[in-house]
Amino acid sequence: MSSKTYSIIGAGAVGGLYGAKLQKAGHKVSFLLRNDYYHVVEKGLIIESVDGDFTLPEVDAYNDVKKMPSSDVIIVALKATQNHLLPELLLPLANKNTVVLLLQNGINIEPEISQIIGSNALIGGLCFVCSNKVGAGKICHLDYGTITIGQYFTNNRPAGITEQMREIAQDFEQANIPIELSEDLLLARWKKLVWNIPYNGLSVVLNARTDEIMANTDTRFLVEKLMWEVAAGAKSCGRIIDDRFIQKMLDHTEKMKPYLTSMKLDYDRKKPLEIEAILGNPLRMAKEYGVDLPMISLLYRQLKFLDFRNQLYIQQLIINK
Amino acid sequence: MSSKTYSIIGAGAVGGLYGAKLQKAGHKVSFLLRNDYYHVVEKGLIIESVDGDFTLPEVDAYNDVKKMPSSDVIIVALKATQNHLLPELLLPLANKNTVVLLLQNGINIEPEISQIIGSNALIGGLCFVCSNKVGAGKICHLDYGTITIGQYFTNNRPAGITEQMREIAQDFEQANIPIELSEDLLLARWKKLVWNIPYNGLSVVLNARTDEIMANTDTRFLVEKLMWEVAAGAKSCGRIIDDRFIQKMLDHTEKMKPYLTSMKLDYDRKKPLEIEAILGNPLRMAKEYGVDLPMISLLYRQLKFLDFRNQLYIQQLIINK
Repeated sequence: MSSKTYSIIGAGAVGGLYGAKLQKAGHKVSFLLRNDYYHVVEKGLIIESVDGDFTLPEVDAYNDVKKMPSSDVIIVALKATQNHLLPELLLPLANKNTVVLLLQNGINIEPEISQIIGSNALIGGLCFVCSNKVGAGKICHLDYGTITIGQYFTNNRPAGITEQMREIAQDFEQANIPIELSEDLLLARWKKLVWNIPYNGLSVVLNARTDEIMANTDTRFLVEKLMWEVAAGAKSCGRIIDDRFIQKMLDHTEKMKPYLTSMKLDYDRKKPLEIEAILGNPLRMAKEYGVDLPMISLLYRQLKFLDFRNQLYIQQLIINK
Repeated sequence: MSSKTYSIIGAGAVGGLYGAKLQKAGHKVSFLLRNDYYHVVEKGLIIESVDGDFTLPEVDAYNDVKKMPSSDVIIVALKATQNHLLPELLLPLANKNTVVLLLQNGINIEPEISQIIGSNALIGGLCFVCSNKVGAGKICHLDYGTITIGQYFTNNRPAGITEQMREIAQDFEQANIPIELSEDLLLARWKKLVWNIPYNGLSVVLNARTDEIMANTDTRFLVEKLMWEVAAGAKSCGRIIDDRFIQKMLDHTEKMKPYLTSMKLDYDRKKPLEIEAILGNPLRMAKEYGVDLPMISLLYRQLKFLDFRNQLYIQQLIINK
């Protein structure tokens, strides 16, 4: 095990789970918390996991980033809708050797973050995990758990497998976190979108679980069409996603337990949706290469309308208070 | 005024309104009713209309098509989802001179009906009317009211203005029903779809009124994109819809009172939706000419899923009774 120290920004379903696993494996981990800060200081973190339940009674928790120690690896596990906060969160924590690991869905998020911390110290990560925060300091990890990481390189060029990636991978493996290394972060992100765009999008617009979407011939057909549009978007950026991969995603989802996507959970909780990271950015990337993705474009605008109405509702609640 | 006799099949918001106006103008009109039959026999029809309220205390009503007299013009004002009933409804009523006037939204519905009654006696009609059935035998006509009619000709070829059309138009005008004659029924139907596809589709999927759709930049953008796809569909069939027409539809809808589309009303009442006539048929027509309409195709499948779930709900209600 390396002696690397870790900071976790966003100790929710993803950051809380992986941060706790790293601490349990012996790493020094500090957590930046907001709403749950006092609760976690007093009671620690409780992880109910398919890999085994455990509790961390003592957690190095902070509610002010300026009081946190700097660390070797900063894991950003905020929703992408919070990324405007990153300049003030990352700068106090980073030293000249710090690596940022960005655990977020979506695509083309790294260029903006590399403006803050430089492009040699940024690793993108994608989590294939069913995990929910079920209460203050309490996380329920239901299924899966693999992380795929890839080094960011200027203009999204493939960076190969780097030493930084290997070191982090070693720590994660020793903490029982399955990890895969990708030579091409952008390809990995496009591949994740093959799942995320159809299921996140349709689950919100149609108020449906993954199993309902797969059981109906019309939505099953749509999912496949949307997956092919994602592949067309990837191709516009020179990344090839073949039909075996698409078939694998379909088969895989058919075997999954009935599942509400993360975007659907956010929608039902009236939280802002990661529409730009997951749908807006790939549309804009493809468009730059002259490729139109009409079905994804329709879904994108539908989601923006629904998200707008949700946020309008929240604002009116606040005004009426 | 001609001495033509009229039968109305489907005396709801559309058939009830226009049938009552024809009777008020002095025509012999018979009505085929289902649920409202006994009520209408006893109390007649009540029309609350922007053009002036009126009551018809006595109505020639039937609940069995076999007991109805044959007539010169049969007005079919059923929802297109009921068209499978037309063989048994039309044959007893038609004589060798009968003309059928089909007042329905959608496109390419006529070929099937011409199989029943022949293709020389079929006129298609499109109603630009805000009208609702608000109770048994009671119709509330809120706004607009123009009907556009066009003669059907084999393979949807333009038929010009026919004598049959002129005769019906004269009767309608004398009954204070504004009427326009189209030389090309298929073009008229494509034009109506420019409005019906975006607003009916989005209002159901997004649970939104026309004013909400127009006020939001994303859905406003979608409406226009969908209208352009309808124009592309029309073009595949050799019919040209220009940008002025699209602009007129947008401006017109922006000025309309907040409005729930007919498909949205059907959806909320858990009635079957006219998805095939309004979206499925134009998609298939364009496809025959090798033209893909991806946004309409997505909307079509989304609606089919929502309609399926609605009908499943109804079935389960029946089973649980």
